[in-house]
Amino acid sequence: MAKVGIVMGSDSDMPIMAKAAEILDKFGIDYEMTIISAHREPDVFFDWAKSAEGKGIKVIIAGAGKAAHLPGMCAALFSLPVIGIPMKTSDLGGVDSLYSIVQMPSGIPVATVAINGGANAGILAAKMLAMSDEALLEKVKAYAENLKNDVVKKAEKLENIGYKEYLAQM
Amino acid sequence: MAKVGIVMGSDSDMPIMAKAAEILDKFGIDYEMTIISAHREPDVFFDWAKSAEGKGIKVIIAGAGKAAHLPGMCAALFSLPVIGIPMKTSDLGGVDSLYSIVQMPSGIPVATVAINGGANAGILAAKMLAMSDEALLEKVKAYAENLKNDVVKKAEKLENIGYKEYLAQM
Amino acid sequence: MAKVGIVMGSDSDMPIMAKAAEILDKFGIDYEMTIISAHREPDVFFDWAKSAEGKGIKVIIAGAGKAAHLPGMCAALFSLPVIGIPMKTSDLGGVDSLYSIVQMPSGIPVATVAINGGANAGILAAKMLAMSDEALLEKVKAYAENLKNDVVKKAEKLENIGYKEYLAQM
Amino acid sequence: MAKVGIVMGSDSDMPIMAKAAEILDKFGIDYEMTIISAHREPDVFFDWAKSAEGKGIKVIIAGAGKAAHLPGMCAALFSLPVIGIPMKTSDLGGVDSLYSIVQMPSGIPVATVAINGGANAGILAAKMLAMSDEALLEKVKAYAENLKNDVVKKAEKLENIGYKEYLAQM
Amino acid sequence: MAKVGIVMGSDSDMPIMAKAAEILDKFGIDYEMTIISAHREPDVFFDWAKSAEGKGIKVIIAGAGKAAHLPGMCAALFSLPVIGIPMKTSDLGGVDSLYSIVQMPSGIPVATVAINGGANAGILAAKMLAMSDEALLEKVKAYAENLKNDVVKKAEKLENIGYKEYLAQM
Amino acid sequence: MAKVGIVMGSDSDMPIMAKAAEILDKFGIDYEMTIISAHREPDVFFDWAKSAEGKGIKVIIAGAGKAAHLPGMCAALFSLPVIGIPMKTSDLGGVDSLYSIVQMPSGIPVATVAINGGANAGILAAKMLAMSDEALLEKVKAYAENLKNDVVKKAEKLENIGYKEYLAQM
Amino acid sequence: MAKVGIVMGSDSDMPIMAKAAEILDKFGIDYEMTIISAHREPDVFFDWAKSAEGKGIKVIIAGAGKAAHLPGMCAALFSLPVIGIPMKTSDLGGVDSLYSIVQMPSGIPVATVAINGGANAGILAAKMLAMSDEALLEKVKAYAENLKNDVVKKAEKLENIGYKEYLAQM
Amino acid sequence: MAKVGIVMGSDSDMPIMAKAAEILDKFGIDYEMTIISAHREPDVFFDWAKSAEGKGIKVIIAGAGKAAHLPGMCAALFSLPVIGIPMKTSDLGGVDSLYSIVQMPSGIPVATVAINGGANAGILAAKMLAMSDEALLEKVKAYAENLKNDVVKKAEKLENIGYKEYLAQM
Repeated sequence: MAKVGIVMGSDSDMPIMAKAAEILDKFGIDYEMTIISAHREPDVFFDWAKSAEGKGIKVIIAGAGKAAHLPGMCAALFSLPVIGIPMKTSDLGGVDSLYSIVQMPSGIPVATVAINGGANAGILAAKMLAMSDEALLEKVKAYAENLKNDVVKKAEKLENIGYKEYLAQM
Repeated sequence: MAKVGIVMGSDSDMPIMAKAAEILDKFGIDYEMTIISAHREPDVFFDWAKSAEGKGIKVIIAGAGKAAHLPGMCAALFSLPVIGIPMKTSDLGGVDSLYSIVQMPSGIPVATVAINGGANAGILAAKMLAMSDEALLEKVKAYAENLKNDVVKKAEKLENIGYKEYLAQM
Repeated sequence: MAKVGIVMGSDSDMPIMAKAAEILDKFGIDYEMTIISAHREPDVFFDWAKSAEGKGIKVIIAGAGKAAHLPGMCAALFSLPVIGIPMKTSDLGGVDSLYSIVQMPSGIPVATVAINGGANAGILAAKMLAMSDEALLEKVKAYAENLKNDVVKKAEKLENIGYKEYLAQM
Repeated sequence: MAKVGIVMGSDSDMPIMAKAAEILDKFGIDYEMTIISAHREPDVFFDWAKSAEGKGIKVIIAGAGKAAHLPGMCAALFSLPVIGIPMKTSDLGGVDSLYSIVQMPSGIPVATVAINGGANAGILAAKMLAMSDEALLEKVKAYAENLKNDVVKKAEKLENIGYKEYLAQM
Repeated sequence: MAKVGIVMGSDSDMPIMAKAAEILDKFGIDYEMTIISAHREPDVFFDWAKSAEGKGIKVIIAGAGKAAHLPGMCAALFSLPVIGIPMKTSDLGGVDSLYSIVQMPSGIPVATVAINGGANAGILAAKMLAMSDEALLEKVKAYAENLKNDVVKKAEKLENIGYKEYLAQM
Repeated sequence: MAKVGIVMGSDSDMPIMAKAAEILDKFGIDYEMTIISAHREPDVFFDWAKSAEGKGIKVIIAGAGKAAHLPGMCAALFSLPVIGIPMKTSDLGGVDSLYSIVQMPSGIPVATVAINGGANAGILAAKMLAMSDEALLEKVKAYAENLKNDVVKKAEKLENIGYKEYLAQM
Repeated sequence: MAKVGIVMGSDSDMPIMAKAAEILDKFGIDYEMTIISAHREPDVFFDWAKSAEGKGIKVIIAGAGKAAHLPGMCAALFSLPVIGIPMKTSDLGGVDSLYSIVQMPSGIPVATVAINGGANAGILAAKMLAMSDEALLEKVKAYAENLKNDVVKKAEKLENIGYKEYLAQM
Repeated sequence: MAKVGIVMGSDSDMPIMAKAAEILDKFGIDYEMTIISAHREPDVFFDWAKSAEGKGIKVIIAGAGKAAHLPGMCAALFSLPVIGIPMKTSDLGGVDSLYSIVQMPSGIPVATVAINGGANAGILAAKMLAMSDEALLEKVKAYAENLKNDVVKKAEKLENIGYKEYLAQM
């Protein structure tokens, strides 16, 4: 069965990467999640990235911060799509991670989502899998419908109680 | 048959968007390419984005510059993946386009590639389609192999003639 | 009667948007305030923006953060002025919101105020309405006079007690 | 009759400011255009800004570059709306101009448009005047319709001749 | 007697401006300190800046944040040197203040110090006055000698107790 | 007699530094101009900076680009004011030079002017000398008056010929 | 015996510089650590930097923040390698420190590590010494092996307990 | 004999990398120079980086642009020092390359030089080798002496002919 690989360069990225896993859980998508540093254990990383396709992984979600090489190196070794999540950094806010992930040279794209965009990485992976899975596409649409309803409810609440009370309840 | 939608906000983006089309041509992937401004003709845009799925479009490649809303609005209206290409801008270098495309809110991802990354958008679309198309995956791998051979040849040339002659021939 | 529309993409923007509403309250300007996500509920958004003129809305104040498309999409659908408020963001400080709002393409301007500039958005809306409303213009001038008096009083306090005591009382 | 004031800090800003004037010409809006440096001739500037309202000016369009104080100082002296145009600069690309214009303190907004956004400043001024002028509003809508038609024609051309020929004709 | 003018746009700048005053106190330099907003009370500001020279003020220290126009407008109205202090801002870190102060057009310089550089503004004012005041120059040199001694003592402490103990005592 | 020292780190800075010299020439201010690299010849630099006061130099104008240490190191060695000119750089636009010059630590200020602000550095030096030189102050005021007249003439020309003809003559 | 010099411009840099010392302690590398401000005590600094080679120092690690001149001035006075550590700053995040250290002019390199990269500076110094010290090279490799093992253990833990429990234990 | 490895990700980096080679030629340092893309041919890259130590390479100079992973991946695979050269990029000026190279995580440093700093990379490599090679150290010092003399000559020329003539001859 189609599977997603989730990989992070450091366990400090776990709170963000967990959001991707939660989305996949919600959609019932199978995944394998691990911590591998492309810099500290390049051999382990190479083996993992090269064996991913054989294990049925159809898309990799890779998160990394600062000089974030993990997503780009995944894309160099894995032939199917790689989604990159730039981590927010304490000094540069994540601009360093973002540039290191999105500015890939011609030939080796990384599908980059927002800084700290763990949930969006999960949703993007689901959308990719939904390209050939009608049932999953229906789940993706239902999820979007829920997002819409959440906003509609907030708008109704605002209309009912006014902005002062709304603020007071926040 | 699976199809890609290519849409740009202005025909000034054509030189970059053409590179995406060239990649799809090379891989034999069917696509539909058009110019639609989300800002100048929102109704036309809405109709196009909402009808895309029904036309068999499995992934949209959207390019835009400055306050680049086209990719994100595609992602709001189309349930399958959207790839965003931030255009280089004359004043801010494309940082404005990049932030406007990649920093999407939770729930609505855009798979962002590098500034002016037209070819990479095409390759990423091909990789997404290759998730369920073995023959296409082979083509993607062959393309990567060619990229590798190009570099190998350059390295051999450098070894043969030395850097001074190499520079002189550039 | 002339009315202002206040719209935000998420209720997390409420503390800033409330400042715009407070200004309109102070000036006795009628307004309608709601929460609509252009990304999560594009249809709701389209209907709202297209019906705004018919409801007597003369200017829209739209606030959004990150890849902030709401103000620009309002400007695409509403023929009268749109004021955009870029929200401060935790990673990029609001530069992403600012670029996404101010860098609009030729033909579709958004009147952008400072990052988190909720009060200024309200004042700008009042100034626009005051272009054809003498009584409101007098209120705008009185408000400015008050701002001036506040500073004058602080200067007097500083002159009276000196900077050391002034600092101690802060 | 309602009038627009157009003011620039240096005649090097003329090519951008002329685009605002062209838009006003197109809409048949009366305007007065001048060159005044808030830094080099503060007295002249003060007199001009304070007398603007008395001359029937309803909105000021002010353009400036680098440490661009002209729009903000207009807003300090003129009670009706001020539109600011940040000029592109050769070293910082216009980020300096943008920050100097948009980041106004609470109480004194400047309606900021894009870097080098001369045409958009003109359109925004027209939209403000159209808030109380039905005939002008119709012209604004017709202008937007024309923008839409331009894009539609380009899309048709692309459909007819394909992207390779389109590129060749650019 | 030669005097320094210290002016800030808002009393929120007081903690930084106080550092400039403390330096002048330490050097026994006469000064006048006030709060004037160039944006909220332009007339008060104009009068103050134009009368400064007549009151014996030889140099103005002006601090402001965001679209920080106060130092530049002082420089437009006052013929002697103006020192500008860019205030740190919560969203952009003070880059906005810095650009708004330092990027002055040709003809109207502002002597800009570091973001939040209150003490340095005081020292720079003292150095300017010391150009024609030998006794003050000696004080400036003595102050620098003290700064040096402070570092020398810290180096000796580090040599004596080692970095681990040094850290523990911080 | 009071003298200005002009020093640049590389002769590639000459076109900008010459503008400072031209201003001093215009005001009849004595100066000494040289090229010294703090990085390439630190001993020569130390001797020059330490001997400057003894040669009657009252203020130093120092220009440098990239990791621009020259102005700050002058300020470490010379007790009177140092004016720093950040050079525009081909890759980062001069932001690197600006930060390296303006962000001086507490105790050692550099009076920083705009990127490539050679003329302003000269004017600022003149203003500093004018603090104790009435005749020079009159020249500074006359210079400012000329700047004003230049703008007034341009405004008159614009009023006479209109913006289209003005543009055509540019 | 080969020695490393560790120098910081202010004792506020101690927490970061201590990490470099800890690494050298771990590798058994001899070092001398001090606090010297190139700006506040240029003579002390000159003597130290010029005498370093004679004391057997083979590489200097220099840390500084804001307009960080210390590493570059070390490189101007010391013929062997200088490693620069840009300190994080509260306003600009350390971009100012980074540019001031890394953007050195041709001829005078500084080996720059990441913002706040104290440990990496120590490791880089060790690697330089290991170029001619086999035993040290083995220690460097063992250290890298340990880093690898740390990540492997974390990956095993994640595999064993799952991401939810992993997060809960953080 | 000690050798330097020079590697670039693309032959478009050749003009900058050649400057490093020229420096090594000047110092008589043996080197091996090649073109290897970590992204396009990760296997070739891995083999090269892992075999470098065995071939006697003591330091690697690696240049790359945009999401520049080559230097950091070299540092992951090679135990001795890696010098990184960030390439200037057409859209972001090289900030992307700089961040991708310098912001390495703890444990894996890259000795980063200035954007396009090819010559400085060569000099830094020479300085590292000179740590254990007295004869090379003398050459490094002689090179620095020459740099100094070049500036001294320019200063003499300026003194002789004045800045106007100097400018005219540029």
